[in-house]
Amino acid sequence: MAGRLAVKAYLDLLSQPCRALLIFLKHNKIPHTVERIALRKGQQKTPEFTKLNPMQKVPVLDDNGFILTESDAILKYLATTYNVPDHWYPKLPEKRARVDEYTAWHHVNTRMHASTVFLQEVIFPMMGQPTNPAKFEKSLADLDGTLDMLENMFLKRQPFLCGDDISLADLLAVCELMQPLCSGRDILKDRPKLLSWRSRVQSALSDSFDEAHSVVYQIREKFTAKL
Amino acid sequence: MAGRLAVKAYLDLLSQPCRALLIFLKHNKIPHTVERIALRKGQQKTPEFTKLNPMQKVPVLDDNGFILTESDAILKYLATTYNVPDHWYPKLPEKRARVDEYTAWHHVNTRMHASTVFLQEVIFPMMGQPTNPAKFEKSLADLDGTLDMLENMFLKRQPFLCGDDISLADLLAVCELMQPLCSGRDILKDRPKLLSWRSRVQSALSDSFDEAHSVVYQIREKFTAKL
Repeated sequence: MAGRLAVKAYLDLLSQPCRALLIFLKHNKIPHTVERIALRKGQQKTPEFTKLNPMQKVPVLDDNGFILTESDAILKYLATTYNVPDHWYPKLPEKRARVDEYTAWHHVNTRMHASTVFLQEVIFPMMGQPTNPAKFEKSLADLDGTLDMLENMFLKRQPFLCGDDISLADLLAVCELMQPLCSGRDILKDRPKLLSWRSRVQSALSDSFDEAHSVVYQIREKFTAKL
Repeated sequence: MAGRLAVKAYLDLLSQPCRALLIFLKHNKIPHTVERIALRKGQQKTPEFTKLNPMQKVPVLDDNGFILTESDAILKYLATTYNVPDHWYPKLPEKRARVDEYTAWHHVNTRMHASTVFLQEVIFPMMGQPTNPAKFEKSLADLDGTLDMLENMFLKRQPFLCGDDISLADLLAVCELMQPLCSGRDILKDRPKLLSWRSRVQSALSDSFDEAHSVVYQIREKFTAKL
């Protein structure tokens, strides 16, 4: 791709899919610039940003004028158009289908349930809304069901969610499963299978993982100091 | 693919993604057999089916022993491994990314909001749970927000959700947007832009559309006769 300029990523690292995108860009050394959109300041609602993404959501990718939303689609597009190792999004149809299967499932399972726990425990109280104990218990139970499926279905016979090596599925999943840690809650702590999966993912991603998650560690420190 | 046998699709036509799959198979003349899994009889919970799909959900595809779940992944896999027209899931990365963008968005928007309206208006009352008017109003409002986005973002400058021709995105979307019709509710009736989109989708799919939706028309008849 002669003359292709660095892609521009609009993101906020407090957003799980934004962290996945930044890790992917850094780890694969894809030339990029970052434009920070501070969600806590409502910068996703400015007229300029709304023009870019009418959904008012991050991340957004600008690849030389081609504007793309939805982390799932962005990662697949980058994996296809940049020369990244095949394991991220395999070309073989059966292997690719496994990644597509997980990412389709992800939205209303891993993403929905882990972020609901985070919202109820961290964000709502910050906004002055007290946590509803019954709703919170329900959210924890839903998340437990998802963690069971991750262990018993996706990780049943393999070290990563979609096979023998790390893929976009693991990257999207790990960023969601880290989010409840903001309140000091490690949702994987009694789950040795998921814990060793997370270690494998973390080693595969090396420094880019902790760099992207530094905001999570900072919030955890503040949150647990308050208690 | 020498020696490849017909694929087997496990489905129930009352399920929106199952209809999308059956339409795709028929329309593209992909050799297939159908195994009916009657959701109202709980056949998705039998030990045999649970072995096939621990999620206990339809559709499931069996392609010569390769078992795949999640309609979104199944359709992309079929589009890639069978010789179907490119417009369904274009090979060009920018065009393909548009389909991936819509399908990623679809899960917690079109699918979630249209099916919630259907569940509250048709399924819950059938199960003896009275509809909660406040919750139902909220569901209708959420669905309205989704329909606005479909019109103002995806269909803003083009006849189909992802471009000039029909794709997997339109197929998945139309099957969800037909579901509330079971109670006689045409959610598109005051939306000329979406209505003409639906006509275009319906013409592009010809007979396979009405065949797959016959169960929806039957339920509508029974439901509206009761009123």
